[in-house]
Amino acid sequence: MKTLDTRLYFITDSTPYTEEEFLRRVSAALKGGVTLVQLREKERTTREYLSLARKVHELTSSAGVPLIIDDRLDVAMAAQVEGVHLGQSDLPIDIARRIYGEDKIIGATAKTVEQAREAYSKGADYLGVGAIFPTTTKVKTILTSTDTLRDICAAVPIPVNAIGGLNAGNIDVLKGIPIAGVCAVSAIMKADDPCEAARVLSDAMKEKLGI
Amino acid sequence: MKTLDTRLYFITDSTPYTEEEFLRRVSAALKGGVTLVQLREKERTTREYLSLARKVHELTSSAGVPLIIDDRLDVAMAAQVEGVHLGQSDLPIDIARRIYGEDKIIGATAKTVEQAREAYSKGADYLGVGAIFPTTTKVKTILTSTDTLRDICAAVPIPVNAIGGLNAGNIDVLKGIPIAGVCAVSAIMKADDPCEAARVLSDAMKEKLGI
Repeated sequence: MKTLDTRLYFITDSTPYTEEEFLRRVSAALKGGVTLVQLREKERTTREYLSLARKVHELTSSAGVPLIIDDRLDVAMAAQVEGVHLGQSDLPIDIARRIYGEDKIIGATAKTVEQAREAYSKGADYLGVGAIFPTTTKVKTILTSTDTLRDICAAVPIPVNAIGGLNAGNIDVLKGIPIAGVCAVSAIMKADDPCEAARVLSDAMKEKLGI
Repeated sequence: MKTLDTRLYFITDSTPYTEEEFLRRVSAALKGGVTLVQLREKERTTREYLSLARKVHELTSSAGVPLIIDDRLDVAMAAQVEGVHLGQSDLPIDIARRIYGEDKIIGATAKTVEQAREAYSKGADYLGVGAIFPTTTKVKTILTSTDTLRDICAAVPIPVNAIGGLNAGNIDVLKGIPIAGVCAVSAIMKADDPCEAARVLSDAMKEKLGI
């Protein structure tokens, strides 16, 4: 298993921002202590995605934080970042692993114990499980119960992160579930001060979840 | 240089068809003598693109015709097809070549002599040059003159194909220009009988262009 700190996993959404403002916000989140960053772009061309990935990678590299690219293994390889995240509509994990090699990070999304076991068996390094709460980031949100989250943590030996509408005010629901960390999009991305928001969420995780 | 027959290069558009009808049409085009096939999908998820690529690849492999995937190097690698086609909004050629290796086919789009020289110098195996005529396949079509097409043929030693609204009735405009072949989308894809349409276009190329 790779040494991978998924504790405070920041997933970006550049949609409403200028590139300058977006990069400023990513930079602030890194200063606030996020331990992993995922660049998630759905509307850009491949070349635009690559260009932004390189700029974000400069920031994450300076902070010593791995950068994960959502969906696009070609962009991840071209930008020479640390990993790729694959949802259920993206490349199958085992095929991506064959292409990408053993040393790179491959994350997966799982909504059920069955999906979690399959992703692990096919080579996923960590899992994002949710959505725990409804989220504005995705149009159609399928919720995953905290019971299922707990079952997934018990079913696989890799880090499991909770995702979906999580913030400092509601992470209490995760108490006692042996997750490795929390994924946050809006709670950090849309905050007035992403640096402060990352710190507040990190402190709340320590206090309420003991992680 | 690779042995690559770009003479009658069929570029697909599955948009209006059921999968069954689409595959039937690709199969017919192969029977009609197309020498190269490009799968071009813009709206599908990565997994859907991969799934379709595998099905088309079965057909092209049976026909002994290489399959090229538009834009997505990850899909091309995952489906283990013969090549990838990269436009100006896709991955840079040299980066794709580094990832994909020397033995695979990488095609590029060029609209100017400068773009053609750059694509060749960065490792492209062939060029698609156009649009020669306006096309319904792309919303914003930037036309390339036959003079520029001729200049590009003279500027690079790799196969140059003309593309954009070409069919048996209008390829006369290419007469005397040393192209390696013609790219066709609608002329074959939307024909009542794609097999017959491929044959008619092929015959017209022989007769009018001597290729």
